[in-house]
Amino acid sequence: MSEPKMAPGALGDPFQSVADDLLIVDARLHDVLRQENPLVQRVADYLLAASGKRVRPSLVILTARAAAGEMSPPIPVAVAVELIHMATLVHDDIVDRGEMRRGMPSLRAAFNDQVAVLAGDFLFARAFEILAGTGQPKVVDVAARVVRVMCAGEIQETLQVGQVPSEEEYLRRIEGKTAHFLAASCRLGALSVRAAPSIRDSLTEYGQHVGMAFQIYDDLLDLVADPVKLGKAVASDFSQGVMTLPVIYALDRSSRGGELVDALSSQDDAGRQAALAILEETGAIRDTERMAEGHVAAAVQALSALPKSGARDALEQLAGFVVARPY
Amino acid sequence: MSEPKMAPGALGDPFQSVADDLLIVDARLHDVLRQENPLVQRVADYLLAASGKRVRPSLVILTARAAAGEMSPPIPVAVAVELIHMATLVHDDIVDRGEMRRGMPSLRAAFNDQVAVLAGDFLFARAFEILAGTGQPKVVDVAARVVRVMCAGEIQETLQVGQVPSEEEYLRRIEGKTAHFLAASCRLGALSVRAAPSIRDSLTEYGQHVGMAFQIYDDLLDLVADPVKLGKAVASDFSQGVMTLPVIYALDRSSRGGELVDALSSQDDAGRQAALAILEETGAIRDTERMAEGHVAAAVQALSALPKSGARDALEQLAGFVVARPY
Repeated sequence: MSEPKMAPGALGDPFQSVADDLLIVDARLHDVLRQENPLVQRVADYLLAASGKRVRPSLVILTARAAAGEMSPPIPVAVAVELIHMATLVHDDIVDRGEMRRGMPSLRAAFNDQVAVLAGDFLFARAFEILAGTGQPKVVDVAARVVRVMCAGEIQETLQVGQVPSEEEYLRRIEGKTAHFLAASCRLGALSVRAAPSIRDSLTEYGQHVGMAFQIYDDLLDLVADPVKLGKAVASDFSQGVMTLPVIYALDRSSRGGELVDALSSQDDAGRQAALAILEETGAIRDTERMAEGHVAAAVQALSALPKSGARDALEQLAGFVVARPY
Repeated sequence: MSEPKMAPGALGDPFQSVADDLLIVDARLHDVLRQENPLVQRVADYLLAASGKRVRPSLVILTARAAAGEMSPPIPVAVAVELIHMATLVHDDIVDRGEMRRGMPSLRAAFNDQVAVLAGDFLFARAFEILAGTGQPKVVDVAARVVRVMCAGEIQETLQVGQVPSEEEYLRRIEGKTAHFLAASCRLGALSVRAAPSIRDSLTEYGQHVGMAFQIYDDLLDLVADPVKLGKAVASDFSQGVMTLPVIYALDRSSRGGELVDALSSQDDAGRQAALAILEETGAIRDTERMAEGHVAAAVQALSALPKSGARDALEQLAGFVVARPY
């Protein structure tokens, strides 16, 4: 795989400008998950110990700023989207039988599937209480739709495991799985500050493209990244029966499909090298990178509808960041 | 166990007066679960095939009518509470490893735990989209709180399996598990028609007591009902490590606690008879019935704040119905 076109940091760290806001988001997350019951608190503490990158809260805050300038950012909405994201991770680990999450044993591994089902529901419920508190039913609607679309997509994925989707089916799947949520995070930021419809739609479009780029690149990393740096097994998607874009391209273009499937199934380093050779040879990696970069460019283009600002710059950096992650 | 004090039908069928509304609720449930994707539609169809008693939608409609007269009932809210109830059942079957639900294999048994996790989330999301559509953030808040309280209670129950709670702990648990949702269904009915605060609070109190009576009686039936008529194994709560009120009373009062535990663990008819003898002898059954009946009386009392109406009569019947179910 060629070097990432944009080295991390070249455009600046997109999270720098929201660092203070994210500290507030984290403090609020602790507040809203405070429990009377010590047993339930144990579960909440466990959830809080594994902290993510807070991409979605950052999008809420940056889009609100980009649309409305330096007014106080919609922290509760940022907290709610992170709670929803946490809920989906907790439930995804049940669906995928995931053992690790954010560098710790997953909740289902640390407790059990039963607790994980309930904890995910609890997080969803807490998020919708907070969203109701905005007094904006539209905000609730956008967030609920995200969950609905993600679940419908994942039910479909679960029932289709092992099948090779078309490129179009793959793109539709990752749209429902990732892009829709990132687009909605941006839309929620804009809605929170009651941005004009054209600004709101541009920010939504930005988030949609960032989400597509993010997931395409994430799926590529699953195949090509150094497993040690990535911190998980290579081709974990494939081994769970989920076919991603590079594999779809390669299977479509090469007579060595059987060989690729065998190599990906082997789960060892020789297999990994053999798979990479086929993915390189067919141009599958190059075209996947191009697809991701195309979405980054479209995301940046969507921002041109907004006035110049520090928040807009940070959103631009964030779009580049997703296809230049150092792992 | 003595005969139920109120034979079913003696006060009339509480569901009769909402029969037409429930047909509309069912039609809307089909509409809101219509899916583009045929695989996801299979899951939705399965969920719809197992129809329940629709207690919560009935409460929404009857309380709205009791508070506001013959205006058109809040069907979307009634649909949303049933979707939330369905979601909790689907997820409860994962938690309890339930094989049967509403006379059919549970969703997790018919598909798998993975699909059941996602389908429950999907139902929650659909419910909150509909609630957002009411334009009343308070309605979203009340519903989200129901889910949060139920989950926190169930997480606690799951982590405490096998322990004998105090009577107070038991009552708090079933409040979170059942009474809070029934109270909220009534509150939502009242909120939907913008009832005066005093009426809204009386209806909430009514629902709270109906919920307590319902769950206490349900837990009693699990121990004393004919397993054939009940359609499930006797003492299924106990065999899952959940201690209910009659058992708590009997263990507290009798020196034959070990014998009771053995009898309940045996899962055969002789064991069932031995357990019943101890539960009778200690007055555990009688006092449990009295507790349930006390809540029915309190529920009916709460209704006295409302003007007389057909809907109020039906609510009164419904309160009696829960402790006189013929199974």
